[in-house]
Amino acid sequence: MKTAAIIGGGVIGGGWAARFLLNGWNVRVFDPDPEAERKISEVLGNARRSLPGLGNVALPAEGLLTFHETIQEAVEGAEWIQESVPERLDLKQKVYGEMQAYCAPDAVIGSSTSGFKPSQLQDGREAPGQIVVTHPFNPVYLLPLIELVTTEANSAGVIERAKEIISGIGMYPLHLKKEIDAHVADRFLEAVWREALWLVKDGIATTEEIDNAIRYGFGIRWAQMGLFDTYRVAGGEAGMRHFMAQFGPCLSWPWTKLMDVPEFTDELVDLIAGQSDAQSGHLDIREMERIRDDNLVGMMRALGANNWGAGELQNAHDKARMGEAGLPRSIDQLKDLSQPVLTQNRVVPLDWTDYNGHMNEARYLEAFSEATDRMMEIIGCDAEYVANGGSYFTLETHVRYLDEALAGDAIQVKTQVIQGEGKKMHLWHAMYAGERLLSTGDTLLVHVDLKTRKSSPPAPHIEANLVKLAEAHASLPAPEGLGRATGAPR
Amino acid sequence: MKTAAIIGGGVIGGGWAARFLLNGWNVRVFDPDPEAERKISEVLGNARRSLPGLGNVALPAEGLLTFHETIQEAVEGAEWIQESVPERLDLKQKVYGEMQAYCAPDAVIGSSTSGFKPSQLQDGREAPGQIVVTHPFNPVYLLPLIELVTTEANSAGVIERAKEIISGIGMYPLHLKKEIDAHVADRFLEAVWREALWLVKDGIATTEEIDNAIRYGFGIRWAQMGLFDTYRVAGGEAGMRHFMAQFGPCLSWPWTKLMDVPEFTDELVDLIAGQSDAQSGHLDIREMERIRDDNLVGMMRALGANNWGAGELQNAHDKARMGEAGLPRSIDQLKDLSQPVLTQNRVVPLDWTDYNGHMNEARYLEAFSEATDRMMEIIGCDAEYVANGGSYFTLETHVRYLDEALAGDAIQVKTQVIQGEGKKMHLWHAMYAGERLLSTGDTLLVHVDLKTRKSSPPAPHIEANLVKLAEAHASLPAPEGLGRATGAPR
Repeated sequence: MKTAAIIGGGVIGGGWAARFLLNGWNVRVFDPDPEAERKISEVLGNARRSLPGLGNVALPAEGLLTFHETIQEAVEGAEWIQESVPERLDLKQKVYGEMQAYCAPDAVIGSSTSGFKPSQLQDGREAPGQIVVTHPFNPVYLLPLIELVTTEANSAGVIERAKEIISGIGMYPLHLKKEIDAHVADRFLEAVWREALWLVKDGIATTEEIDNAIRYGFGIRWAQMGLFDTYRVAGGEAGMRHFMAQFGPCLSWPWTKLMDVPEFTDELVDLIAGQSDAQSGHLDIREMERIRDDNLVGMMRALGANNWGAGELQNAHDKARMGEAGLPRSIDQLKDLSQPVLTQNRVVPLDWTDYNGHMNEARYLEAFSEATDRMMEIIGCDAEYVANGGSYFTLETHVRYLDEALAGDAIQVKTQVIQGEGKKMHLWHAMYAGERLLSTGDTLLVHVDLKTRKSSPPAPHIEANLVKLAEAHASLPAPEGLGRATGAPR
Repeated sequence: MKTAAIIGGGVIGGGWAARFLLNGWNVRVFDPDPEAERKISEVLGNARRSLPGLGNVALPAEGLLTFHETIQEAVEGAEWIQESVPERLDLKQKVYGEMQAYCAPDAVIGSSTSGFKPSQLQDGREAPGQIVVTHPFNPVYLLPLIELVTTEANSAGVIERAKEIISGIGMYPLHLKKEIDAHVADRFLEAVWREALWLVKDGIATTEEIDNAIRYGFGIRWAQMGLFDTYRVAGGEAGMRHFMAQFGPCLSWPWTKLMDVPEFTDELVDLIAGQSDAQSGHLDIREMERIRDDNLVGMMRALGANNWGAGELQNAHDKARMGEAGLPRSIDQLKDLSQPVLTQNRVVPLDWTDYNGHMNEARYLEAFSEATDRMMEIIGCDAEYVANGGSYFTLETHVRYLDEALAGDAIQVKTQVIQGEGKKMHLWHAMYAGERLLSTGDTLLVHVDLKTRKSSPPAPHIEANLVKLAEAHASLPAPEGLGRATGAPR
């Protein structure tokens, strides 16, 4: 098993420790802070909660985490040494001296420094070639970016090994061949931070307003395409050159306090447009627009599931529209108790389709699952009731796929109560696109106590509502397909 | 039905038109560009594809879109007038003159300007009070942010109506009470753009490297928490004040070419820390970390579904890990043909859980759906085969929920071929957490021709592999629960 040494714990060192550990490396930590073990274990707790499920394939068995009293003990025999000590060059230099007295000559020493250039770290060392900058981003256990900055002192072999190891723990080595203070990403962070300080200081916007200006707008764009591809799309059919021609003059406008701007020459336009072509010229603008929109919809819907940011806004908009969309929220809002209840009225989202070009089978069930949620709310099993410890769990479901649905199709679900008494709730969901029956869901649920996780009787008002609806639906004909098993003859 | 007038089409005006139309407004467009109708219809096509499925509740019926020869025709009787003409003050002033000669006195005139202050637009007008800045972000039909900038000339009533209408079409009015060139968001864009130009010009990084530096790192963070909340979390338990104390000195470092920085006084620290407390003091840092991680995982997984950005990186990492995780990719990789096949080996992601605190019912099916994908690949129905027009569609599935799974639980799916001949593939998926049986999926699929969308025989090599596996599995006992219908007696 491979071994990484983490020199300096804290949030960044702890994130590195988690990355290596959860990708199957043994990790040895050196940090003189008496709180180091607690701090790292907190980061590790966060990482264990989030990283293993980030992908769709299990990570290897966790490595072994050990804490060490000396740098010597931590680095001896380690293949990777990650330095995340405070941003003081003298301190870093001292630590490197001690590391290099004991570490293997072919170990890679990566520095988490956000500000120093690798040449500053290598300066005066006997073996400068094993030292590189590997600058991560918090939370290190989730964000893949590593700025790998090297100098001529680093051999091709060292650089190759560094890239391989970084990729091996699920990260992305962005190799910068020309060193510069603060590398690349932090220069942007710094520019934005300075502008933000001015805006707050000048009373233009509060911290919250600034955060909203970012996360409801360009922040979501940047999360998927960054800066240049975003503008490439904005330029439309005419492309990057057109965008720059349009935007170029603004450089001399009094925007931002930050006015030292490069001269807007033809050479610069050519350079940027050429690089942009090399980056994304294989996609036409319409394709890029669709990719962008797929990404934005997917990310905003992911935020919606957490009721956060742009997703929280959308949820509020949805909620306000329910009445107009004919979606009842309580039994009193049902106009005709004897008819199946409209429990979904929506459009197939872009992120519900799969490689077959239609709504994925699991998303049919997602719509039925949300239809069940609506039915629960209608009989009184709402968010407050759930918070107080009562809910329904699904025991089994039979789904038939009768017709395809495409992204953008308007779909409705109507729900019939087959049985509702005691702990049991048996629902029949039917999904339509207009008159076209797309799918049916034959679902049995049981009321549970969320503390014991066992079945339990519902509150009296919920049972009463359910029975009322079940009795009203009893006169409906049994749906075609009710009680059908997979593979049974038709 | 309400009516909006869109003065100036293009990407921005077209986005506004789509927002209003898809939210049930009638829209009248004036744009002298002979290409306006085509351009708007392209934006509208994108919007129809993506916006209606963004939320979980259907939007109202679309309004009526009409094109008009004169500003008069477009604005008469409109409740909202959105001006998106080119960024020339004289042109905008001229357009306002014509609008105001014909529009209702209580109509709101919103300007899409990114650079001009509302006072500049209002200057010299007889009725300045109906003019506000409503600055949107591309794509206007998806991103919710509107910078609403007003002056003292705007009455409380006008501001209230503007906010209401913006919210009503699913957007977020960020009300800036103090006007400033470029408002707020574009000042950040401008700062980043300038820094990016320097980096490209100086040969430090290419456009692609810069985009990667953004979208694999801070871009994803900003999409959900913006700047200050992100740093609040980074500050850890010690909070915003601690973060600023740490980061403050960097202001004088030679990062970025942009050096006009505000003085880092105690007053500024107090101001920012106080605003940050007001914004997010109700959440403790551990909660914020979990929210952040939930969001990052959700967004990165959404990007993964599109195989884009940080999600593409994760997919590559997953793919590289399949062998080590014991997941076969072809029938030749099966060690023992007679045993059920390992088709999923993964950890329950954070975004797979619901309000009951466990894996949502639809996600069990998502795991089974991906297990089916694996089985398809194993018998030769891989991405290339699908691209050539053959695939399997699910006809019906019965899922039993036997035990709960929590976020972070390691789960495996083993798949047994019940029947495999001709067009039919009947699979039995069993999901485990270790030895614990969580769920079963009884699934019937049929091979289809993706062109006709009808059942068709699979390619001979696929049928041969399927038959081989079905014959090898024929000696396995029939699984308990096979052929079960929902609600049947046990």
